[in-house]
Order: sequence, then C-alpha cells, then structure tokens
Amino acid sequence: MKTDTFAVIGGDFRSTVVMNQLADKGYHVKYFGFDETLAMNPNAIHEKNISGALSGAKYVILPLPYASQDSTTINAPLYRKEILISDVIENLPPHCFILGGMLDEVICSTLKSKEITYADYFHREEFTIKNAIPTAEGAIEIALRETPHTLHRSHCLIAGYGRIAKLLSEYLSGFGADITVSARKHSDLAWIEARGHHAIHTSQIKDYIHNFDVIFNTVPYKIFDRTALSLAKKDCLIIDLASKPGGIDFESAQKFGLNVIWALSLPGKCAPLTAGSIITDTIINIIREWEDSYGLEQ
Amino acid sequence: MKTDTFAVIGGDFRSTVVMNQLADKGYHVKYFGFDETLAMNPNAIHEKNISGALSGAKYVILPLPYASQDSTTINAPLYRKEILISDVIENLPPHCFILGGMLDEVICSTLKSKEITYADYFHREEFTIKNAIPTAEGAIEIALRETPHTLHRSHCLIAGYGRIAKLLSEYLSGFGADITVSARKHSDLAWIEARGHHAIHTSQIKDYIHNFDVIFNTVPYKIFDRTALSLAKKDCLIIDLASKPGGIDFESAQKFGLNVIWALSLPGKCAPLTAGSIITDTIINIIREWEDSYGLEQ
Amino acid sequence: MKTDTFAVIGGDFRSTVVMNQLADKGYHVKYFGFDETLAMNPNAIHEKNISGALSGAKYVILPLPYASQDSTTINAPLYRKEILISDVIENLPPHCFILGGMLDEVICSTLKSKEITYADYFHREEFTIKNAIPTAEGAIEIALRETPHTLHRSHCLIAGYGRIAKLLSEYLSGFGADITVSARKHSDLAWIEARGHHAIHTSQIKDYIHNFDVIFNTVPYKIFDRTALSLAKKDCLIIDLASKPGGIDFESAQKFGLNVIWALSLPGKCAPLTAGSIITDTIINIIREWEDSYGLEQ
Amino acid sequence: MKTDTFAVIGGDFRSTVVMNQLADKGYHVKYFGFDETLAMNPNAIHEKNISGALSGAKYVILPLPYASQDSTTINAPLYRKEILISDVIENLPPHCFILGGMLDEVICSTLKSKEITYADYFHREEFTIKNAIPTAEGAIEIALRETPHTLHRSHCLIAGYGRIAKLLSEYLSGFGADITVSARKHSDLAWIEARGHHAIHTSQIKDYIHNFDVIFNTVPYKIFDRTALSLAKKDCLIIDLASKPGGIDFESAQKFGLNVIWALSLPGKCAPLTAGSIITDTIINIIREWEDSYGLEQ
Repeated sequence: MKTDTFAVIGGDFRSTVVMNQLADKGYHVKYFGFDETLAMNPNAIHEKNISGALSGAKYVILPLPYASQDSTTINAPLYRKEILISDVIENLPPHCFILGGMLDEVICSTLKSKEITYADYFHREEFTIKNAIPTAEGAIEIALRETPHTLHRSHCLIAGYGRIAKLLSEYLSGFGADITVSARKHSDLAWIEARGHHAIHTSQIKDYIHNFDVIFNTVPYKIFDRTALSLAKKDCLIIDLASKPGGIDFESAQKFGLNVIWALSLPGKCAPLTAGSIITDTIINIIREWEDSYGLEQ
Repeated sequence: MKTDTFAVIGGDFRSTVVMNQLADKGYHVKYFGFDETLAMNPNAIHEKNISGALSGAKYVILPLPYASQDSTTINAPLYRKEILISDVIENLPPHCFILGGMLDEVICSTLKSKEITYADYFHREEFTIKNAIPTAEGAIEIALRETPHTLHRSHCLIAGYGRIAKLLSEYLSGFGADITVSARKHSDLAWIEARGHHAIHTSQIKDYIHNFDVIFNTVPYKIFDRTALSLAKKDCLIIDLASKPGGIDFESAQKFGLNVIWALSLPGKCAPLTAGSIITDTIINIIREWEDSYGLEQ
Repeated sequence: MKTDTFAVIGGDFRSTVVMNQLADKGYHVKYFGFDETLAMNPNAIHEKNISGALSGAKYVILPLPYASQDSTTINAPLYRKEILISDVIENLPPHCFILGGMLDEVICSTLKSKEITYADYFHREEFTIKNAIPTAEGAIEIALRETPHTLHRSHCLIAGYGRIAKLLSEYLSGFGADITVSARKHSDLAWIEARGHHAIHTSQIKDYIHNFDVIFNTVPYKIFDRTALSLAKKDCLIIDLASKPGGIDFESAQKFGLNVIWALSLPGKCAPLTAGSIITDTIINIIREWEDSYGLEQ
Repeated sequence: MKTDTFAVIGGDFRSTVVMNQLADKGYHVKYFGFDETLAMNPNAIHEKNISGALSGAKYVILPLPYASQDSTTINAPLYRKEILISDVIENLPPHCFILGGMLDEVICSTLKSKEITYADYFHREEFTIKNAIPTAEGAIEIALRETPHTLHRSHCLIAGYGRIAKLLSEYLSGFGADITVSARKHSDLAWIEARGHHAIHTSQIKDYIHNFDVIFNTVPYKIFDRTALSLAKKDCLIIDLASKPGGIDFESAQKFGLNVIWALSLPGKCAPLTAGSIITDTIINIIREWEDSYGLEQ
C-alpha cells in the first residue's frame, strides 16, 4: 500500500489535513484544486492540472461533500477556478479506487457503468461515530457562548438518543448540568436512565419543555412544533443539530422570540484538524478492508 | 388494567418483589409456590393450590427461569413441593396472558397450540439493558473483594463491548482505573475511543494481556485460550461474565494457577430487589403495549 | 430581615441581577447608578439621586469592584454620570451595613473611622469557590473556540491546583482529554493522582511542556518563562487564568509566535447571570451570619 | 541513599510489601519480626534477632500502628514471639532515622531524650490523601455487598466532606447514585454543590435522613444520635468510616434494628498491596525531604 499514489482533488481545510497526513504516513500524494501549495511533506506534490494529478493514482480522494451545490463541479472552496466532475471522471486512471464524501446517485451510476470501484467514507459507521465527538464539542461551545448562565446546574433537554446525543449528554454531565433526554423506544429510555439522566418519551416534551434552559435537538423531523415552542421558557436557548429539515418550527420560534441556532457541519467548522484526521483514518480503514477482501479473492 | 388479577407462580426472592410491587400499584395479586406468606399488601393473597391461584387471573407471571433443570416443573426454590408445568397449563383460565422468563420451545409450542397469549420478559431489550446495571455492579464488587490492590490506577481489560461492558467500563472509569476494551467491529472500536478508553482488536488480546491486573470477559466464546492465558500476569484476576460456555479455557487457567471467577446471574444474587423491580417494570411495559395494540385492533 | 431595605449603588449587569433577585426574595430594594429602570419587581425602586437611594437603607450593596480605576468614583458602567465615593459615604444612614467587592485600604479605614459596619463579599471563601465554576466554563469555551482540534484526546496541562484548576481538570476529563496538572506540594500531587490525572512537580514543566496542545495557567507568578515557552509546541494554545501579573512571559511568548490568551474576570463576561446570583447568595450568607452573631451578643 | 540500609521491624502484610518494594528499588533491606522469609529479592535479608536486624541500619521502619495494644511490644501479627519496644530502642544504631506509624507520646519523648531522629508517616498529608482511595473503595465494596439494591439510583448520604468523603462522593456518582453530602462550613457546602451533589447543613440531617438508602459517616462525633436514627429508613444501611468514637449511637441503632457497619482500617483490609505501596512512597518522600534539608544545613 505504501508504494501506492493518492490523488487528493479539491475540498476545504480538511482535505489539506488528509493530504499531509497521508504523505506523513509515507504514501505518494498528488493534489489538485488548491490555489496554494499546502503540503509541507516532499512526498506530496501540488499538481497544476487534473490529468497530471490523476495519472498513475491508485486512490482518488474526493472532498466532503464531493460536489458543489450545482452538482456539476467538485467542491473546491480553496481554488479560484472550477473543476468539472466530468473532467475528473474522464481522466481517471484504470483500476483506480475513488473515495469521496456524500456521493450521490448521479456519480455512483456513472462510476458503476464505467466499472470503477468507489466508496463513500461519509456513510461508514465509524466515521459517523468519530464525527459525533467534534459535533458534541461544538454544541457545548455554542451553549457556553450563547447563555448568560453556567451549564453547571442548568436544565438541559436533549431530543433523541443517537450518537451525538449519547456523547453530548455525557459531556454535559461533566459540567454538572441536570440532563433530560427524550426518546421513543423502551430500549433507549432504559439506556438513558442507566446512564443517570432523566428519560422522557418524545410525546412528553411539551409537558416538560417549560423547565429547560438549553434544548439540543438531534432529531431530523419537527418535534418542536408551534405548541411545544409556545410552552418553552422565553430565554431558553435552542440548538438544532439535526440535518435538514431539522426539528424546529423556525417561524413559530421567531414569533415567540426564542433564540434558535441551527448548527450544521460542526466538525469542519469547530475542529477541522480533527475532522480531517477522521477522514484519513476512515479512508485507510476502507482501503485495508478492500485489500483484505481483494486478497481473499485470489 | 387496575381491576385485573395477576397470578404469580413460583420463583425466588425476585418473584416476591414482583408480587408486592404489583399489589402496591393497586392490582389484585394471587400467588402460589411459596411456603410462607410473603406479601405485606392485603391486595396480594397467598393461595394454597394452583387452581385457586390461577382462577380468574388475567395475567400469569412465571419466574426467571420459568422451569427447573428437569424442565417439567416450575422453578420454585421457595416451595418445598413440586409444581408441574402441565398442571399450570391445564388450570390456565381462558383469555389469560402468560409472562415468563426464558420460555423454551416446549412450552411455547404448547401455548401456541392452545392459542394462549404469552411473552418472554427475559428477551425484552429494555430488560437486558436494565439488568446490565446490577451485573456491572456485581462485577465491580467481585473485583473489589478479590484484589489486594485498588481499582484506582489498576489496568483493566474488558473483552467485548455490549451492554454490560459499556456500563462496566464507565463504572471502572469512575474509580480512575486504566481501561482497555477489546472488540472486532470498527464501529465498536470507534465508540470505545470516543468514550476515552484504550481500544484493541480482539485479535490483539494476547499481545497486551500481560499488562492487565483485572480481566472482565463478556464474550460467550473462548477468546481466552491456552496461548492468551499463558501470557497473563500470574496474579491477575479474571472475571467471566459471559453466559455458557463462557470465554475462558478453565483447564488452562487452572494449570497456570490463575484466579478465575465465573460470575453468572449476578442481578438476582447481588441486587435481588432491583432485579425484581426490573421484572415488574418490564411486565408492565409488555402489558401496556399489548393493550395498546389490542385497543387499536378494535 | 424581610422588612429591611437594600440600596444597590452602581455596578454592571451583575448588580442588576442582585437587585432583582433581592426584590424577588421579598426585600425592599432601592437602586441608583443606572440610566434605565432595570427592575421588573415592584419591590425595587429606581432612585434618581444618591440621598434618596440611601435614606432608610439597612444594607448598602456596592459593586464588584466597588470603585472605578480612578478610585474616587463608584464603578458604574451602566450610568452616564459619576458617583463620587465620598458622596456615598456622606449620605450613609446610621447603623447601615455596607457590602462591597474588592474594598481597598482607603475606604476601609474611612468606614472604620466612622464606625460603619462593612464586609467584602469578594473575599468570602464560598464566593471564590462558586466563581471558580463560571471561570472554568469560560476557560473551556476559549479552548473549544481557539483550537482546530477536539478537547477529546488532546493533551492539556493545568499549572497549579487551586479551586479553578480542580474544576477545570474535572470538566476536561469529561471530554476525554489527557490531563496533566503541575503543583509543588506533596499533598496536591497526591490529590492530582487520586483524581486520576498525571501529576508533575512545577519544576518539571519545562521537561514536559513539548507534549501539550493546550496549557491553562492558574498560578500568579511567571512559571512559564522564556526557557519553558521556547520548548512549547509552536501551535499550542496558552490560556492564562491567573490574576495580574499572570504566569506567562508575554514578550517571549510573542517572540515564539505562541497563541496566548489572558482571560480575566471570566464569570462576569461568560456567565453574568450566574455571577450575579453568586453575589446575591454570598451577601445573604454574610448578613445571616452577622445577624446570628449580633443576636448572640444580646 | 541507594547505599543505605533499611531495617523493617514487625508489622502485617503491608510491611512485607514495604520491604520488597524497597529491595526492588535497590536498597539494602534487613527485616525482623516475621516467622517466614517473605522477601523474594536477594537485597532483603531475613534476620533472626533484633540486634542483627538493626546493626548498621540507617533507616528503621516500624509498622502501622507501631505498637500492640499493650503499648510495650511492637505490633507484629506475623511473628509468634514478642518484640519489646525497649529492645528495639536499646539496639538502635547511632545516627539512624526511625519511621513509624502512629507514634505516641511515650516513644516520642524517649527518642527525643536520646536525640534520635524520627518521623510518623501516618501523619503526613499525602499519606492520608492516598489512603482515602482504598478507604473509599472499601466503603463501596461494603455498600455493594450489604444492599439488595443497586447503587445506581440509590439515595446516599455522606456525612462530612473531608478527604474520604470527597473521593467516595465521586465514586458513587460514577454509579449514578443520587448523592447528598452534609457539612457545616459555607465553603464546604459551596464545594459540594460545585461538584454536582446535594448539599445540606449538618443540622438538617434529621430532616432528610428518611430519604436515604445508604448512609456513610466520616465525622468522628455523634451526629447520628437517637433522634436522627429514629427517623431513618428501617432498611437503610449505615457505614461508619469515622475513627473512634465514630459518629453513630450504636445502642439506639440496634434498638431500631438498623444495619450499622463500623468499617475501620479499610486500606490494610481491602487493598493491603496498595496500602503497603502508600507507606513505601511516603517513607521515601520523608527521607528525600530530610536529606534535602540536611544538605541545605551544610
């Protein structure tokens, strides 16, 4: 694997972390889609065109998300020009392995048709778990910044008990906050109590919402509707960590003058260095597994 | 539900907790299979024969496990005589609901053939989670009792990262122990590190085992084989929490003079009152859900 | 005590918290030194001149710190005009009790000469302890904001093991940071290890400083001198929580391009509501004790 | 220091740990007052008489406590015969340094009169702090063993907030227990709340005692008197960790049928290996400081 070449195409600061860490691990790295030379390591070469970057590459690393809004160009915020996705695909060397984030149906079907191996590191379980750490830390940072009181002794509600909620509830416990977590499943409610928090069923949120100083939502559907929000403390802080469409009825929240913060993509914003390392680690896990299974096929 | 009658048939101290808690909640309770009158609550009546206990009962509570080793009689350690499972089934009132622990194929097929509703509270997710608490506390009690050193600063290995291991690792952290957890899945390894422990792959156990003062096994197959045990500290303590066949090669362990403790059924032994409450809570969850679904069918 | 009147003179947001909380507890409150009417409670009256505010007051609450830089006027940032300390003293009613923050030699000697009872809530042990909470939370907020990595798995040094350090080390543990604390006394080093952190003697800081991503100083003398700083990671973050003169050689730090943040008076900045409540609680403790001792004298 | 000789005279298992650890550190060790040869290390010699053990010794290590009940012989539970304290003193080599535990007025005055240097490691602050760890772990072991319920969700009272109470409250938190700590000083009450526990004044114990499942006392005077005990839950467990005379009115407790456990000297009983290491560490701290100060005198 060490002798293989990686091509890192576009992306933000996290991609620069990936290229440097891969080079530091001893791989040959070529990168394209950056206005400046960002690698300190001589094993990482800054290429000036896409064909040069891709030629001879065994692994092609696309950013997270891989595409811009237009979904025709690579997401490359650190590059003044455009990188057409079609140009990347045309220049792919034979037998290469593409690793990208949030690969959509369009590119997947194209790659399938061309029999190009690919993987989406964004959908790996360990990637999601590791990203829950900077996400939870980012949520704590927001809560510390936006409230005039301490987290210590504050009453916090966390809606949902997935990965982010599990870590967030533990970090908040560390501050001596009084924590309530809402969920639907008996098993989640059992875990919440086992961890020493107050457990309420999602349907009870409106009965308890008046108690909370800070509300963290991790559920991606509107459980904080007009009724629930109308019963919240006027000075409570609501942090929505759920991906679109989120769990808060923003119109009602504004009408009630509630302070709502929609916090998306916290890892890249709050801890880009860690977020980059998580991508590197996941990419290497994927490649190791792929090599192992490939080896078995022999 | 309050007007319904519960029949509690046999079982150990946990069953007496169940009957008393159900009576305290206002249900009518009849119980059979105990030499002494164990209920303080007037709503719980001590019946002297099986037919009297079952007549008019809507819910029949069998113990955990429901059967004795012979699998023909009800598990009734607090009763001098025998209770034939066949007698219980013959005397079941129509439309009753049986709730028992570890119901096997034999009784399930019989009940199915007789179209009698039944449920096994032992297999409920929330039951297993709640029982992980007394199990983990029991494991800590054994470690505190059996070691000449403090848990503080001791090096502990937990094999496996299921429910018990998750709680055990947190309780041990509370004492300032240095904790390593072994697992196979990338996602488990990610969680272990997210929780601040050292993560090793199960295949690395033999490489690290020489470091540990206390080893807790939660995996039900022999990962601690002759080779691994031969590398363990001579004075390390091994606590096997895995159900049969357990994860330790006992013969080799004895040959190496290692102190191995096979700790089974800790909840009933270390915290019978809590263990009984967990059964009560689970039974009520099952009945509520059954009534809801039943109601919906109308 | 309920029938007594409190006069709150000047101060920042924390003083407005104090006046409102005292009024909410049922005391008569008069306040002066604010451009706007800040009390919601009818028991708190906004006075337009110092004599009106002080007449009939049993307890006179001065801010924290009580004086401006010039040390001739009351610290009143929410008031456009000036309040001469001399005016306050001239208008003091007989037998009143003055409670202020950071009272200096000048005012103390004047009050003594006039036989006026006074107390400095800033020097109460419980005040300092309670203020360590918002201070530690503020330090965490800075660390989360200023670092491109997570606190989880980061290597943190806390210099000193006083009140702030004790809480800070526990909050950081909650994030899964690797924590080292430096101290001089054997007893402090024993506590640090008892709490599960790495303990080093203050004299060893320069031997270990190259390991740390974040350094929190709580010691008010230059232990981070040129030599120590020359050995620190170039990208480490240094947060100085020590009161003047602080513990960092800023010139050298700048020369080495280190990111140093001098974080003073965090409670009032990061959690003014909590900081105000702490003043209210301390004032009431002082008054209760004073009344008790006074009672005993009868 | 390495070239110096240590004489270990009498004591229990902890003294055998001390002699072995000193030998493992490279010191010459001679020991007397044990029926068997307990050292594995060739640098530790088992002497058959007191004069042989003491001759040429620079440091003489006496056990904890140094004397038997009769206060005329050395506390030597692992030795069939008697060791007269007078014999030890008569055979002391010139310029030796005696380190013992719980040295009383009698021996101290004798040593002073003979101008022999001595120190009591039992009274060192770091010794007391480090011993609080095995003491707190031992208290948890008792609570786990003696209660039919889990510590998780149990209501615990800790009377006093000294070293043991500080650690005990944190270990109990780790289990998810609901913790109340009683104290008298405002500063202690502030710390208790800062650490996230419920704080009550010692005088309020009788008002709250009916809530508690487990009561840990660390205060050495009768705060649990007849009145308080009469209000406790009949099935609550009381663990008295306070040195004589303890804090519980045992007669009343028995009359009320309460389960009271007087737990003394837990370190030596529950974690003798750790307890021995703590003595070794403390002895070395004392000697280092003594040598430093001695060096300075030159």
